[in-house]
Amino acid sequence: RLLYEAVRAIGFSKDFAGKRILVTAGATQEAIDPVRYITNHSTGKMGYEIAKAAHFRGAEVTLVSGETALSVPPGIEFVQVISAEEMYRACTELASSCDVIIKAAAVADYRPAHTAEQKMKKGGELTIPLIQNKDILKELGQVKRSGQILVGFCMETQNLLENAEKKLNAKNLDMICANTIGTPGAGFGTDTNTITLLTKNGAKIPLPNMSKFDAGMKILDEVLKLNGEK
Amino acid sequence: RLLYEAVRAIGFSKDFAGKRILVTAGATQEAIDPVRYITNHSTGKMGYEIAKAAHFRGAEVTLVSGETALSVPPGIEFVQVISAEEMYRACTELASSCDVIIKAAAVADYRPAHTAEQKMKKGGELTIPLIQNKDILKELGQVKRSGQILVGFCMETQNLLENAEKKLNAKNLDMICANTIGTPGAGFGTDTNTITLLTKNGAKIPLPNMSKFDAGMKILDEVLKLNGEK
Repeated sequence: RLLYEAVRAIGFSKDFAGKRILVTAGATQEAIDPVRYITNHSTGKMGYEIAKAAHFRGAEVTLVSGETALSVPPGIEFVQVISAEEMYRACTELASSCDVIIKAAAVADYRPAHTAEQKMKKGGELTIPLIQNKDILKELGQVKRSGQILVGFCMETQNLLENAEKKLNAKNLDMICANTIGTPGAGFGTDTNTITLLTKNGAKIPLPNMSKFDAGMKILDEVLKLNGEK
Repeated sequence: RLLYEAVRAIGFSKDFAGKRILVTAGATQEAIDPVRYITNHSTGKMGYEIAKAAHFRGAEVTLVSGETALSVPPGIEFVQVISAEEMYRACTELASSCDVIIKAAAVADYRPAHTAEQKMKKGGELTIPLIQNKDILKELGQVKRSGQILVGFCMETQNLLENAEKKLNAKNLDMICANTIGTPGAGFGTDTNTITLLTKNGAKIPLPNMSKFDAGMKILDEVLKLNGEK
């Protein structure tokens, strides 16, 4: 902890001093009943490393996270959520006070239309009707205030850059971090990632495979540039 | 590790020496697509503690486990599985060579009828048709050989003992460990549990709240008794 604090204090330039950053991380859990739920393979590592990098660079960081096996980096304000609906409430409450919002969480697009109060008994055929969750990123894009930087993530198994660009424009983002599964050393659960950054100015910045912390640093570098251009 | 080995060597009577035990643990993951899946809140702790207790008492232990955040206790043969189907294959392969089978895993009853090869895109209404997974415990009960002890678990939110007794009989078990969620200090993710053991001889043994390791020891005590009666 002491070493961590020393590294934080002297190892990094404080170019985010005075900035409030909201980072989201992890997967949400959408309950089917008290026992079963729908989730995804996000482990939260990417978001936690971004939060740590921003804190090292002097930002005041709030991390809103789904359930993960990770420990919260010291010095970061932490908000625990379970479902996409809780993630929505936390983000919309915090967003307006933040200069930068980086949404690295893998929020479920859908949830079961009904959550059973008791464990469902087995028997016969079953289908789970789903309803769409609110699109947090899109809503934050709609209420984005002047000077605020909004960064999203995009995880695809095909047509990565095409889908990323669509999402960047449709949701009024300043930047999107496109990553894929199926690439070795990238995606869910790994300590490294291979990301391409796309900005609203049309820049496409393919990053080589690197640690998620280093990728977080690169993302923050681009955020600063976008901030300077605003 | 040295201390662990010393405790194992001298801290426990070796009343399971020469016995092969199969223990299952954790939740299975049933893929919707490469990103999303259905799972449950089991963390694997109960099964891992039973495996450890059996190893301490001299058994040759194989642990078949879904994805967990736990580390495998030393000296135990470990088989990693993801889905209920993989769990089924591992268990049916191993079962016949084991003297005792304790199924503490929370295996999904259902899986999506189709697993999408690519990440599904958002849009409109969606339902997930499910199909039943094979009933591993029931199949093991059907092929149980003379002298073999088969122990199941039962997690219910209501009518616990009634459902447990039904399952005990329907699946030809020797014992069932009934536990519930909603009781403080019991169920998923906790270090303690409150279990009632029901045997095929009609015994109902309500255990007080205790560590999952101690609960594992009690389960093994009853297994030995049942074994003596065979």
